[in-house]
Amino acid sequence: MGYNVGILGATGVVGREMIKVLSERNFPIASLYLFASERSAGSEIDFKGEKIKVKTAESGDFEELDIVFGAVNADIAKEKAPEIVKSGAVFIDNSSAFRLDGNVPLVVPGINPDDVKKHAGIISNPNCSTIIALTAINPINKLSEVKSVIASTYQAVSGAGKGGIDALRAEEKAIYENTNVTSDVFGYPIAENAIAKIGSFQGDGYTSEEVKMQNEGRKILHIPDLTVTCTCVRVPVLRCHSISLSVFTKDKISVKAAKEAIKNERGCVLDDLPAFPMPAFSSGDDSVHVGRIRDDFAFPNGIAMFCCGDQLRKGAATNAVEIAELL
Amino acid sequence: MGYNVGILGATGVVGREMIKVLSERNFPIASLYLFASERSAGSEIDFKGEKIKVKTAESGDFEELDIVFGAVNADIAKEKAPEIVKSGAVFIDNSSAFRLDGNVPLVVPGINPDDVKKHAGIISNPNCSTIIALTAINPINKLSEVKSVIASTYQAVSGAGKGGIDALRAEEKAIYENTNVTSDVFGYPIAENAIAKIGSFQGDGYTSEEVKMQNEGRKILHIPDLTVTCTCVRVPVLRCHSISLSVFTKDKISVKAAKEAIKNERGCVLDDLPAFPMPAFSSGDDSVHVGRIRDDFAFPNGIAMFCCGDQLRKGAATNAVEIAELL
Repeated sequence: MGYNVGILGATGVVGREMIKVLSERNFPIASLYLFASERSAGSEIDFKGEKIKVKTAESGDFEELDIVFGAVNADIAKEKAPEIVKSGAVFIDNSSAFRLDGNVPLVVPGINPDDVKKHAGIISNPNCSTIIALTAINPINKLSEVKSVIASTYQAVSGAGKGGIDALRAEEKAIYENTNVTSDVFGYPIAENAIAKIGSFQGDGYTSEEVKMQNEGRKILHIPDLTVTCTCVRVPVLRCHSISLSVFTKDKISVKAAKEAIKNERGCVLDDLPAFPMPAFSSGDDSVHVGRIRDDFAFPNGIAMFCCGDQLRKGAATNAVEIAELL
Repeated sequence: MGYNVGILGATGVVGREMIKVLSERNFPIASLYLFASERSAGSEIDFKGEKIKVKTAESGDFEELDIVFGAVNADIAKEKAPEIVKSGAVFIDNSSAFRLDGNVPLVVPGINPDDVKKHAGIISNPNCSTIIALTAINPINKLSEVKSVIASTYQAVSGAGKGGIDALRAEEKAIYENTNVTSDVFGYPIAENAIAKIGSFQGDGYTSEEVKMQNEGRKILHIPDLTVTCTCVRVPVLRCHSISLSVFTKDKISVKAAKEAIKNERGCVLDDLPAFPMPAFSSGDDSVHVGRIRDDFAFPNGIAMFCCGDQLRKGAATNAVEIAELL
């Protein structure tokens, strides 16, 4: 008949996108349970014509569930995980809580689907920029093993949730009304600005967001010595992260071969010249758009490219539902 | 007493910034002549309390001039250059027309001031992103020769002139009024978007803007085998270009030494953690702000950093006036 599915954090931007993706893909659901914080509990969300009441997750709530999607922060994910696992449900968590845990598979279904089999109750959804970048890199890696990556991101405000969208729109409005709006979602103004800080600074000068692409990339691609330099920048874009990539392989890959591989990769769309990927035209799309493919001038065996992906869809909700489909 | 100075393209954003910089720096001017297209001729611009009438540049107009600043496109610069040189004035040109010409010095005064001496009537002002990136790279290059650079830019709309500013503001306004605005300055919407195309596409997949950093960088730094991969992206920022840089040197440079060198470099401001460069806070500034300095993970001997500079000031007008000061 179907599965009993729960969503933790159902009223956030990722949670709502998960509900949408489950509906669009006709995921076989017997019953859907929506959980959120006390603040959002009591509201109703439409799912395939049925109004579902949002409630707080209480002890015992996971007993009947087969799958629980997590669209909450790492602290809440860590708090709820033991009970979910104990109840026998599989926890597909979008937070960073368990991503580097040796007992938790970290899965992009188009890249390492078999890792799902090793789960012991929890499967982690990778970081959004990591999913988007690796989806573009994976076809190159099939041609020759990727050794090093240099990435600079152009990340949308919706990566910070609904508060990020509201902050940008309020600040843009204030520019016209010549008023002052202080939104502290990003710590600095985001309208007509670029903020080279996402997450918190570590001792080595990188941010917590920037080290994810190397740490998670090694685990997902099964390349333990992969080196990645990432610079994460928030830009005044509503939706869709863009990433400028230089990808270096063991052997030389031609631009032609790279384009061909990307074109044939499931989950990738090749936007070849004169077209090129743009966040404004990748919204709501489950594919990662890849283009601007050219030889890297800086070092041998390099391909430079530019990719865009909807970080709420492919970068979060769609990837999570695809993991559930693998199960 | 002072010099007779002319400005070609005086009513554009770079031309107006040149007038401002000449005034601020008290450049010794006997007479200032402002030239523009027929469309803008007849208007008056204030210079140190004096109203100067803008006129079209006619034959013979350069005869009395000592210095002519060019803030026009490459075609007009090429058209006017022979007459300016023949008149005996020095042409300091902001366009790309003569930058790679072997007989024309390409100068960033903080980097290669002595190259000015080799001029034969024309001195070129480098590309704006190139000036900003090289100003950040130069102190590193003094510690150990730079071999390779990977750069991704976040370029402001004002790089496309007043039309770029108007396009962004009109599109942002349309978002609130829920109307449609089609501005074709960038070929695509720029509000809440990122456009990975500045200039025109070449046969190798790079844009004309992207190859400038390698071509001009080799000439300015006197490193003929410097390799640079650049990805140029227009973002909805009003003013100030930002650049994410990975800089690779012959020998290993420590993060500490890099920071120290940047701090002591004329024209650079070190924005060290928890501060970091942001375009919203670098506007109107003649310095290049450099920060996020850390070891590059991808390859040995690399330093990653992020810099911001006002491309109308340091990236154009200020650099041109500094060249004139060298003369």
